[in-house]
Amino acid sequence: MDRIKPRTLSGFMELLPEKQIYFEKMLEKLRESYSLYGFTPLDTPIIESSEILLAKGGGETEKQIYRFTKGDSDLSLRFDLTVPLAKYVAMNYGQLAFPFRRFQIGKVYRGERAQRGRFREFYQADIDVIGDGSLDIINEAEIPGVIYRTFNALGLKRFVIRINNRKILNGFFELVGVGEKSAEVMRTIDKIEKIGEEKVKKLLVDECGVSEDAADKILALITCQEKGIAPLDALNEYVGQNETLDLGISELSTVVKYMADFGVPAENFMIDLTIARGLDYYTGTVYETQMLDHPEIGSICSGGRYDDLAGYYTDKKLPGVGISIGLTRLFFVLEDQKYLNEEMPAAPSDVLIMPMTEDLSPAISFATQLREAGVRTQLHCEKKKFKQKMSYADKLSIPYVVFIGEDEVNAGKVTVKDMTSGEQLTISPAMACTAISAKINEKRTITPIKEPIK
Amino acid sequence: MDRIKPRTLSGFMELLPEKQIYFEKMLEKLRESYSLYGFTPLDTPIIESSEILLAKGGGETEKQIYRFTKGDSDLSLRFDLTVPLAKYVAMNYGQLAFPFRRFQIGKVYRGERAQRGRFREFYQADIDVIGDGSLDIINEAEIPGVIYRTFNALGLKRFVIRINNRKILNGFFELVGVGEKSAEVMRTIDKIEKIGEEKVKKLLVDECGVSEDAADKILALITCQEKGIAPLDALNEYVGQNETLDLGISELSTVVKYMADFGVPAENFMIDLTIARGLDYYTGTVYETQMLDHPEIGSICSGGRYDDLAGYYTDKKLPGVGISIGLTRLFFVLEDQKYLNEEMPAAPSDVLIMPMTEDLSPAISFATQLREAGVRTQLHCEKKKFKQKMSYADKLSIPYVVFIGEDEVNAGKVTVKDMTSGEQLTISPAMACTAISAKINEKRTITPIKEPIK
Repeated sequence: MDRIKPRTLSGFMELLPEKQIYFEKMLEKLRESYSLYGFTPLDTPIIESSEILLAKGGGETEKQIYRFTKGDSDLSLRFDLTVPLAKYVAMNYGQLAFPFRRFQIGKVYRGERAQRGRFREFYQADIDVIGDGSLDIINEAEIPGVIYRTFNALGLKRFVIRINNRKILNGFFELVGVGEKSAEVMRTIDKIEKIGEEKVKKLLVDECGVSEDAADKILALITCQEKGIAPLDALNEYVGQNETLDLGISELSTVVKYMADFGVPAENFMIDLTIARGLDYYTGTVYETQMLDHPEIGSICSGGRYDDLAGYYTDKKLPGVGISIGLTRLFFVLEDQKYLNEEMPAAPSDVLIMPMTEDLSPAISFATQLREAGVRTQLHCEKKKFKQKMSYADKLSIPYVVFIGEDEVNAGKVTVKDMTSGEQLTISPAMACTAISAKINEKRTITPIKEPIK
Repeated sequence: MDRIKPRTLSGFMELLPEKQIYFEKMLEKLRESYSLYGFTPLDTPIIESSEILLAKGGGETEKQIYRFTKGDSDLSLRFDLTVPLAKYVAMNYGQLAFPFRRFQIGKVYRGERAQRGRFREFYQADIDVIGDGSLDIINEAEIPGVIYRTFNALGLKRFVIRINNRKILNGFFELVGVGEKSAEVMRTIDKIEKIGEEKVKKLLVDECGVSEDAADKILALITCQEKGIAPLDALNEYVGQNETLDLGISELSTVVKYMADFGVPAENFMIDLTIARGLDYYTGTVYETQMLDHPEIGSICSGGRYDDLAGYYTDKKLPGVGISIGLTRLFFVLEDQKYLNEEMPAAPSDVLIMPMTEDLSPAISFATQLREAGVRTQLHCEKKKFKQKMSYADKLSIPYVVFIGEDEVNAGKVTVKDMTSGEQLTISPAMACTAISAKINEKRTITPIKEPIK
């Protein structure tokens, strides 16, 4: 037979079993954590009509999209979870209760240039709160709480949530007379970490046509923290001069005020007036999340407040706030940087039973008993040597091996070997079941991620 | 703005939030249940190279496939989870431990004619055990245990797992002299439930060229149960005359022997010699699962033993046994037939907190406390009337509403309203948290499915 060399497309993550168990644990933690905040799970199709997905159209997105025809239909694979959400909310408006809080974790597709750590198929893990006509600022204040708890549940602690409010920059730009250039100015100051303060000033003056004075004021404000001034204090002198700015300051103050009540420790968040988020549609609070030990990988969880989720599909005003985690890339980085927690059980089974009698009934019954107690159990009945079976357990890191031979059957017992300690005990099936089950449960709370000690 | 009417493609299931919660619960139960048997989770890409996916080629599959080009690549969406598994095992052969037990739950794509209850995007939930060179019969005996426990975990009880062994029919056909026509004969007897015994006999004689005598023997065997004879008894008279038949009888006997040890009650399985399963590649035990109250929907979980998983990609002999649940269609039927369990909590939150003071700190802190205790909690801080907020809780079926007004804050208490009983209590936050948490936990074991009483 002519054989085809098996391969997986480049840019598509496909994990070996042990790594997949870590990924699954992360998915589980995300689902749990999002659910704790009353977000309801959604699952929309991966394929949508191109007309729907590309309603907004244009730009990088359209070039990267997987688009094709099937019969008469012009179809595309979703490239994010936001457009499908907009469609869903517009379509089911009458049947949803608002504020509508949903989470969705699913694969999206972008035909990016293949390179290490970049994926064409990747998971996004999104939450959004959608209001009907209006949405209270408290929803924006709650988001850092969700981010904090979610990363904590995964085992990450060394990260900071950076917060800004688009109204502050917009209002401030109006105030210093660069209002009509605000998008351009924002894009420029977004570069400050990359190119530094001086070059940004030069760009503002030379390219954007901002006055020297305005450029100085802008830079003084967005770099105040480095100079030891808290942003809300730095903003104080401008209060009462511009409505948008005042609203932004008030919103940011509210978000900061409730941070502790939402359970976010002071060291895990900060105001950062340089954060603008590229997307034009954010209108209020914006978020970025940075790993303290890996700032170079950029934000691992971003989002913000927007005023118009679904304008392409409905005349209903649907403001919202949401965040997204690019899970596949995050996982890639975590694995690459040795963040996967070796203490987390990553074996497919808790127990491997090796029957050593012709009649397998006692072994099978014990397997059934263990499974009923929630212990993940596998029988090994292949015609292999004892040594081979032990090395199978080893290779899969199965923590307990159970032997059931004639002696055990006659005594109504089982022999349990703890593969970590090497200890071996011959006890009753019921006792073995209780003991193993207890040990397994102890390990259930171990997080998939553990930060390497610096 | 020109608006586009939001719509979802036909043949693509997209559920409203409440229904999605049932679906998620089913996914959770499947993951749990498959894991108990030591199956490890896998996740392969939805897009593969067409060359890989269509290695087997031909037939209905190729016509239905979603295939397109992107750049220079000829790509296809997977139409099942078996071909990707074959690729995965062939590709990662050296890094896997055999027997390799994996489960995968994921979406697959088939461009079928759209009709009610038929889907173009649907979930399959598969398990497979793959051996390296050989695989013991005990793996085939274990599968009904997995099927039984899985459906039980979902809440289904009224179903029967029908079992056959391809070697029995193959051997028996050889014995009665129709060996070279066995595929054709199998396809014909597969129609017995639809067209009846007489017509099958006529087809066997007229179309397949089977002798009258052989046709009688075949029909006597496959209809023995209706005549009150157990299949293994009916087969007894043929023992010792054909090797394949003998092996089939021995395998089927082993499978039946261990059924009780694997925890399958006698009423949930039966031998059915008419089951052949269309696919040519099954070689041993085959399974179908029928809902007793809905035989018309066909098998809800099928599969069997095969000898050559990945012959298109590798010269390694990789025999296996597996089953698949067509989850999207099953869910459609269950919903349609009113099997969704109304007792299962399908609200996005357990608690809705309504703060009634200007300062939201006490309300937010209580939300944080509840979430830390694992209680899914939402704050309702929108500027809406009390009645509207209560009807929001009602619409979402949120079981507990908490009021925190000036009186509560001053007394350090919260008022909890049980939305089911209407009862209302003003107690300490800690007590409220413990009480609600306990009530919620009681309901965690409620299954997503409940059979309607007949």
